[in-house]
Amino acid sequence: MKAACLVLGAGAGIGGTVGQRFAQEGYHAVLCRRANEEGLNRLVSAIKNEGGEASGFILNAVEDNSIERVVEQTEREIGNIDVVIFNLGAQTGNHSLENTSLKDFELGWRLATFSLFRTAKCVLPRMAERGHGTMIVTSSTAAMRGNAEQSSHASAMSARRTLCQSLNAEYGPRGVHISHVIVDGLVDAPDTVGKMLGEERYQALREERGLEKDGLVLPDKVTDTYLHLASQHRSTWTFELDLRSFTDKAWWN
Amino acid sequence: MKAACLVLGAGAGIGGTVGQRFAQEGYHAVLCRRANEEGLNRLVSAIKNEGGEASGFILNAVEDNSIERVVEQTEREIGNIDVVIFNLGAQTGNHSLENTSLKDFELGWRLATFSLFRTAKCVLPRMAERGHGTMIVTSSTAAMRGNAEQSSHASAMSARRTLCQSLNAEYGPRGVHISHVIVDGLVDAPDTVGKMLGEERYQALREERGLEKDGLVLPDKVTDTYLHLASQHRSTWTFELDLRSFTDKAWWN
Amino acid sequence: MKAACLVLGAGAGIGGTVGQRFAQEGYHAVLCRRANEEGLNRLVSAIKNEGGEASGFILNAVEDNSIERVVEQTEREIGNIDVVIFNLGAQTGNHSLENTSLKDFELGWRLATFSLFRTAKCVLPRMAERGHGTMIVTSSTAAMRGNAEQSSHASAMSARRTLCQSLNAEYGPRGVHISHVIVDGLVDAPDTVGKMLGEERYQALREERGLEKDGLVLPDKVTDTYLHLASQHRSTWTFELDLRSFTDKAWWN
Amino acid sequence: MKAACLVLGAGAGIGGTVGQRFAQEGYHAVLCRRANEEGLNRLVSAIKNEGGEASGFILNAVEDNSIERVVEQTEREIGNIDVVIFNLGAQTGNHSLENTSLKDFELGWRLATFSLFRTAKCVLPRMAERGHGTMIVTSSTAAMRGNAEQSSHASAMSARRTLCQSLNAEYGPRGVHISHVIVDGLVDAPDTVGKMLGEERYQALREERGLEKDGLVLPDKVTDTYLHLASQHRSTWTFELDLRSFTDKAWWN
Repeated sequence: MKAACLVLGAGAGIGGTVGQRFAQEGYHAVLCRRANEEGLNRLVSAIKNEGGEASGFILNAVEDNSIERVVEQTEREIGNIDVVIFNLGAQTGNHSLENTSLKDFELGWRLATFSLFRTAKCVLPRMAERGHGTMIVTSSTAAMRGNAEQSSHASAMSARRTLCQSLNAEYGPRGVHISHVIVDGLVDAPDTVGKMLGEERYQALREERGLEKDGLVLPDKVTDTYLHLASQHRSTWTFELDLRSFTDKAWWN
Repeated sequence: MKAACLVLGAGAGIGGTVGQRFAQEGYHAVLCRRANEEGLNRLVSAIKNEGGEASGFILNAVEDNSIERVVEQTEREIGNIDVVIFNLGAQTGNHSLENTSLKDFELGWRLATFSLFRTAKCVLPRMAERGHGTMIVTSSTAAMRGNAEQSSHASAMSARRTLCQSLNAEYGPRGVHISHVIVDGLVDAPDTVGKMLGEERYQALREERGLEKDGLVLPDKVTDTYLHLASQHRSTWTFELDLRSFTDKAWWN
Repeated sequence: MKAACLVLGAGAGIGGTVGQRFAQEGYHAVLCRRANEEGLNRLVSAIKNEGGEASGFILNAVEDNSIERVVEQTEREIGNIDVVIFNLGAQTGNHSLENTSLKDFELGWRLATFSLFRTAKCVLPRMAERGHGTMIVTSSTAAMRGNAEQSSHASAMSARRTLCQSLNAEYGPRGVHISHVIVDGLVDAPDTVGKMLGEERYQALREERGLEKDGLVLPDKVTDTYLHLASQHRSTWTFELDLRSFTDKAWWN
Repeated sequence: MKAACLVLGAGAGIGGTVGQRFAQEGYHAVLCRRANEEGLNRLVSAIKNEGGEASGFILNAVEDNSIERVVEQTEREIGNIDVVIFNLGAQTGNHSLENTSLKDFELGWRLATFSLFRTAKCVLPRMAERGHGTMIVTSSTAAMRGNAEQSSHASAMSARRTLCQSLNAEYGPRGVHISHVIVDGLVDAPDTVGKMLGEERYQALREERGLEKDGLVLPDKVTDTYLHLASQHRSTWTFELDLRSFTDKAWWN
């Protein structure tokens, strides 16, 4: 039975691409996303056509027990979860305080923070018992500091980051590698940035920055770093790193 | 009609002491706490006996509309809220991931983060319309980084911090001063540290560090800094400062 | 004999203004600056005319023994140095790596970092022996992160900051209060910003932001915070705070 | 002509090991260290015996022109410097302020900061002209914050970090990848930690933490991460990452 790589947020950007790559490396990719069953099936088929193993789940992460159920089922029917790629996005664009409802604010936290906590609760103790495992958490600039019109997103993402720090302090010494990846720039991802901008502006952005100038973070290249993190020796673990295109300013500049 | 100073978390530590001091400076202190009506009444009476103005509310901050109602009533019946002291604690001691229930984790966020968001939602637009106001947010070491057994507390407090950064970016230019105060050490406070340690250990700690050696943060002295923050000229505002006893190590050491 | 307040970098901006204010509070202001003896004498006279005590020294801080000599003389002839305002600027405008000579880079460090180390070496042990004292260090955005064309300034100022952290860790428990003040915005200061911009652009900037809109940090208002820091009780010390105008963006935004 | 990988600080820990690995990947390793010519020759021979290319230089980095000369000679006689591993240590153990002489403090800066500036000055413009290149800078916990008895080391290392940030802001968009690696834990390195502790305590430490428990950072494993950094696509560069053993606490804990 292969080890499983559980991908939460397996869309057409970082999540799906990383899942496919880990399948090429010999994991059974367990791909979870909220919608677009057709896209999900296409990705599962693509992996299988390459000779890999994959399963797909449509899953609403903020629903009670949704993540827990898939973890349970994966461990029972597919294999031990050796790697988790926690890639749930929580970006819904910028909104002023006055235009952020209590419900929006809570939903931001449920997506960005609480669903990670729930994932950690059901996966990390299993990994600790086995003495090894890796959880890589995709994060963003907003995890590093608040800004105007980001009261929901920034608070939820920074909570994601410190939650990772807490998990690292508890589970590192038990053999579980936690990694917090700050994607500090726009990703060339049709499902997120694409939807946020609309098709036309997204293609214009890609033309301007992405294709020729490598000015967007390319999901395919992100997989190299995720694979590297998952393969680091336990004497030499990285908890945090940033990723940005060479033309992008760092968040602190 | 006097300007009001709204204190959320007006216990026997920083909150109540700051409220009393702002009353001495001419504000109507609106003191809110979750329990101990007797203690609350005693504080209100003490302020009145000094010739100051004060009102007290027993209020469960995590309850829907609890904060919103007091803000509404204060502005209608008492005076414009010129200062908010947001002093709700969310420390419940250290708990491993496995011993932190989903409910605990959510409650930590509701107390530390969501109640601040709700306060901001109903107070800051009023201040912005008037062109001035101050919100001082008591925070803690946990806002700066996660640690073992603090998955709930640290994630919620760091979300508090970045929320303050977002609010500062939006409301600073509209004349509202947001300040995030990192209390990086134990406070000489019977309601919080006292309860966490138990009476005996608390008194032992006070004897060891507090009374002679000033090794605990003294609420009475904290008021000096809160008053200073509230009186800073808008050309020269402090967003963030730390407070600790001279014998305490900084969190980064 | 009055206690002395030693001001290194006592120009017409923060340094001189803070010196004057501490003189009003009863300190003997020992004002040191590199040039403009006339301006220095005018400031000393102004303080004396208000009934205060002051002395002035023209001093090239990067010269061997320059600071050490004034400290020695002050303690011998004037009084114990109870407060140091370390206000030496090191801003020389932005320069690309290629336009920063080895000599420039070294000079930046000598001004921003090494002169603070030398000051600490000769003042802090005296304060520690007396069991009390305060050193307030004016710092800047550049202490928080490097940026393009700031290889000299940012590296020297961040070294200033971590040096303060080291000094705080060593001398705090011995009763000496070290404070690092991040001035995160332009100061309304003719000697520094004024010279950097030239008279005309400086006055245009003042008209645009300073006078009506409080969009520049006003040295006179900075003194309130410096005084507050110097008067904090040792149970409740601030190591670091930021100062900026309400219209300025924080460095992290 | 092969591309050169210039290693400054090529001792028996991270530097030499990384140099050997880059030689295996096809670079000509240019290994520089301050002393122990025999050890250096042994390393050069080992690389050559594996079929790789290497040159060795004994070089006192703080001496005028020492680094500049090797860069010049390498580019002229060996090949374009495509990778720099800047690995000069500056750790000399902990010393109180009073036990740190002016000379020590300056030397710390010359080693940790100024020599990096000089390296950048003579290498980065060449890389920028060629449109590509990588400089990986080994750094340490002390770069992140000051602590007692580290006034020299911490200030110099934090200056190293912000210098890297400045270089990244200037040279990233010109195709040069700058990376700042925080080694946040003891390295299993006879030349540095070994000398600091003495042979006996070093071996005891290795037995206690290193060999069985992977509780020391193993240089051999560090090379994996350095290689990964040097091979990242420019759409997806890491500026900063941390490395520590799974049993070590992070610096913020």
